Amino acid sequence: MRPIGVIRSPFTEKDKTPIQASRSQAVGLVEIYLEFADGLKDIEALSHIYLLYAFHKSSGYELQVKPFLDDKEHGIFAARYPYRPNPLGISIVKLLSRQENILTVEGIDILDGTPLLDIKPYVPDFDLRTEVRTGWYETRSKK
Amino acid sequence: MRPIGVIRSPFTEKDKTPIQASRSQAVGLVEIYLEFADGLKDIEALSHIYLLYAFHKSSGYELQVKPFLDDKEHGIFAARYPYRPNPLGISIVKLLSRQENILTVEGIDILDGTPLLDIKPYVPDFDLRTEVRTGWYETRSKK
Repeated sequence: MRPIGVIRSPFTEKDKTPIQASRSQAVGLVEIYLEFADGLKDIEALSHIYLLYAFHKSSGYELQVKPFLDDKEHGIFAARYPYRPNPLGISIVKLLSRQENILTVEGIDILDGTPLLDIKPYVPDFDLRTEVRTGWYETRSKK
Repeated sequence: MRPIGVIRSPFTEKDKTPIQASRSQAVGLVEIYLEFADGLKDIEALSHIYLLYAFHKSSGYELQVKPFLDDKEHGIFAARYPYRPNPLGISIVKLLSRQENILTVEGIDILDGTPLLDIKPYVPDFDLRTEVRTGWYETRSKK
């Protein structure tokens, strides 16, 4: 596992970074390293993409955490808190434009300088679920 | 990055494995290793979870691929094909039940024995996007 690029964002401090892409309107840049740029073919036809990245400022992990949105402890796998056994993050962002190996994206909730691991298309036919129960998020996830 | 568990499924051959969780009704088991089991607290209140895992049977990668659903080449980052620079997979599955460190899930599209890297809650308030364009998937992603 090694970075395929780097994410540039207006956020340089953890506690000033939005906690979810869906709550952010910030614009950022995704720079894909040139050796992987051929993998971007046809991406400009997509409006939304998943970014998979490493929480590079999270060292160590906790199995039970008080997430940002609650004051009770929950298991790390029932939360989206960054201090995870494998520090993997996912954000769904809007793809505004592509210039060669640079993507401009909106709705970024990621620290500047974050190592990018993968990009995948967001496809509602695959990714939408209905009748979802979200546990402790139920009363906490509204904007 | 090391496995936090292992995914058990009815699928032992790549070409008989469903290509998307949304197209599968298969039931599988997610075994979380005991040292991480405390991280499952409250997960049983969730109906849907993301599984993040390693495509352990994909060696090497291609930057342009003919995906399962099309006969034209697309960039790997505009496709969900497994042979990726970082072999990371994501599936959204339905959580049917939990018994200690074992989750029973429905909608599995993952090979038996796949190493599990992370579990995250699926939260529509965070993860739903509207007015999505999906490029070449537009005519290919219907069930």
